[in-house]
Amino acid sequence: MQRLSLLSSHLSRDKGSSVEQQARRSTTTPPSADRGDPASSITKDNSMAKAKVVVTRQLIDVAQSILDARKDELDIVQWDFIEPCDRTWLLANVKGATGILVMLSDKVDEELLEAAGPQLKAIASHSVGTDHVDHNALRKRNIRLGYTPTCLTDSVADLTLMLILMAQRRGGEAMGRVLKGDWPQMPWHPLLMTGPQIRGATVGFLGFGRIGQATLKRLLPFDIKRVLYLTSKPGQPVKEDHFNLLKAASIPIDPAQSADQLAQESDVVIVGCALTPETRHLVSTDFFAKMKKLAVLVNIARGPIVDTDALVKALDEGAIFGAGLDVIENEPNIQADHPILKQPRCVLVPHIGSATFETRQQMATETVKNLLAGIEGGSMVNELEL
Amino acid sequence: MQRLSLLSSHLSRDKGSSVEQQARRSTTTPPSADRGDPASSITKDNSMAKAKVVVTRQLIDVAQSILDARKDELDIVQWDFIEPCDRTWLLANVKGATGILVMLSDKVDEELLEAAGPQLKAIASHSVGTDHVDHNALRKRNIRLGYTPTCLTDSVADLTLMLILMAQRRGGEAMGRVLKGDWPQMPWHPLLMTGPQIRGATVGFLGFGRIGQATLKRLLPFDIKRVLYLTSKPGQPVKEDHFNLLKAASIPIDPAQSADQLAQESDVVIVGCALTPETRHLVSTDFFAKMKKLAVLVNIARGPIVDTDALVKALDEGAIFGAGLDVIENEPNIQADHPILKQPRCVLVPHIGSATFETRQQMATETVKNLLAGIEGGSMVNELEL
Repeated sequence: MQRLSLLSSHLSRDKGSSVEQQARRSTTTPPSADRGDPASSITKDNSMAKAKVVVTRQLIDVAQSILDARKDELDIVQWDFIEPCDRTWLLANVKGATGILVMLSDKVDEELLEAAGPQLKAIASHSVGTDHVDHNALRKRNIRLGYTPTCLTDSVADLTLMLILMAQRRGGEAMGRVLKGDWPQMPWHPLLMTGPQIRGATVGFLGFGRIGQATLKRLLPFDIKRVLYLTSKPGQPVKEDHFNLLKAASIPIDPAQSADQLAQESDVVIVGCALTPETRHLVSTDFFAKMKKLAVLVNIARGPIVDTDALVKALDEGAIFGAGLDVIENEPNIQADHPILKQPRCVLVPHIGSATFETRQQMATETVKNLLAGIEGGSMVNELEL
Repeated sequence: MQRLSLLSSHLSRDKGSSVEQQARRSTTTPPSADRGDPASSITKDNSMAKAKVVVTRQLIDVAQSILDARKDELDIVQWDFIEPCDRTWLLANVKGATGILVMLSDKVDEELLEAAGPQLKAIASHSVGTDHVDHNALRKRNIRLGYTPTCLTDSVADLTLMLILMAQRRGGEAMGRVLKGDWPQMPWHPLLMTGPQIRGATVGFLGFGRIGQATLKRLLPFDIKRVLYLTSKPGQPVKEDHFNLLKAASIPIDPAQSADQLAQESDVVIVGCALTPETRHLVSTDFFAKMKKLAVLVNIARGPIVDTDALVKALDEGAIFGAGLDVIENEPNIQADHPILKQPRCVLVPHIGSATFETRQQMATETVKNLLAGIEGGSMVNELEL
């Protein structure tokens, strides 16, 4: 039922064209700083007592309807486009707001908080990370911060499997050769387009939290042989067993003693740790030199954990078999002539780990709930301790 | 250990370049019909009593060494190139052979059998299918036929998962946009590059044999909700439970009453049945019209089961969300201007289901064993009843 309602809303919104096309179309209606002007909406609604909330983006329909259901009690001022909110519009409209719903692309800083005024109670961010929010500025004003850290585990773990399989089975290269029209000129032979098989593999996890363990859960029926993981405490077993996999495992699942050991012994290396000064370029020339020549590297965490230059060199020299990346240093500024895009055995997708309808819907819904809880003094689904 | 030995042999063979490059290079040494001329080799070896075997391709090293270990007892005449065997060479060299090891690209017909002569005891085919072999011609001469139907289950099931995830998560489209240099101009919004999530999906299998069930085994931890399958006996439960999944399943796994029901209720449709007159174009306009608009279609069986024109139309009109194909009608003659390649939501790879080092190694090894068993009167690993 959920799928059907999602479908119908999705299609009626799209009218057969892509969401991106719609986004581009919406720019042809130039946004005006007057839209949703707070003074005028208050006058029109004759509702001086209503709490004002500012929402910096069009929301997925289910989330939007939760918000719309409160229209009588709230003064809702919304940037009604699928593209990022214009900063000038935001600063002009945020005055008097009790709550603000923001995206990753909206900076929440002194300037914005000053523009809003002292009645502001809550920020609800539609994101897992909160680097775009000045935590100190919020703390000193006693403003609460909601975010959505938990709902993307499944979609990221699914994408990790896609990237592992594409890296091993040369998915990008295979597709590219067909697109170029090479297929008719590819005479069959026993080694044509072959890659390593996942059965019997040792899988190494750099970072072994909820997403890593959700990935392992999906990998087990592929008959992998062994798991190694490296956390900030090398050699020590992880405490959290998110999916009850570790206690009753049918294969060895052990903490690695070092990054070296993990690099040397893994057929698949999955980067899933947080980006910290210690993990920046953790996967670099030394690491690649220790990896097996038929091993693949997958990064679904943060770009700078992998040294891109070293990865290009490793692929060039055949030090590893292939790579699958959802993230990369300097994203999204990856031009068509970037050296990583010349590597046929490297698959790079544009940070789509959480990009499923279901996950984005849940993120949006939780964000609206956080916003409402924030202005009403209730419990947020996920609130960051500031 | 197996992985390492495979690696070293692989790399030493490749010398840093691709196997395909090597294949192209080998054409610069023009094959001669004199190489391995049976008369001359018999004279040279002074071994009139040796059984002669003809092998139509360079084999993967492990398989080659099993064959080479019998060099003293056998007169081995081999097409020593990675490309398909030249028919003229084969007809010239096959005379007097007791066994022939063939690939999918070598026609085994009256002409070849006549050229070989009445002493021929066995054909060992490096393939799952045996359409290239004239079964009647073999039967009337009492020639045995070996083949390799069982060893590719894992590699095909792995690729099926890759194609499902790529179809849902827009893997090809995502990669293509990054390759074109679009990423810097893709402003983030909540629906950017989103696709349906596999969690909660109903998965429909057209054909539910060993490969289908191996695929299901891999799908279960993605938390799919329900399975429907259609066999040649609609509504009747399958007898074979290859991986002990069906008896103790935690989700409903039911036979569909019809192709219509399967089309209507599935979020993922996997084509895994044999190609027969009944299944040709089983997935056509009517089928797509009944599918859900957010559903994806994956074909890992045979191209003609899916009507390509109808698929292109379904994708064009948004009747389904996406597709992942390892096979297609008229493969490999798919030119760069083929209409299916204009569909961003369709991923097409060049029939690489069994293309892993491990599977191809096993296929080659089993084929050599079938060849030896065939000429010595032993048991083949897999022999087709003729």
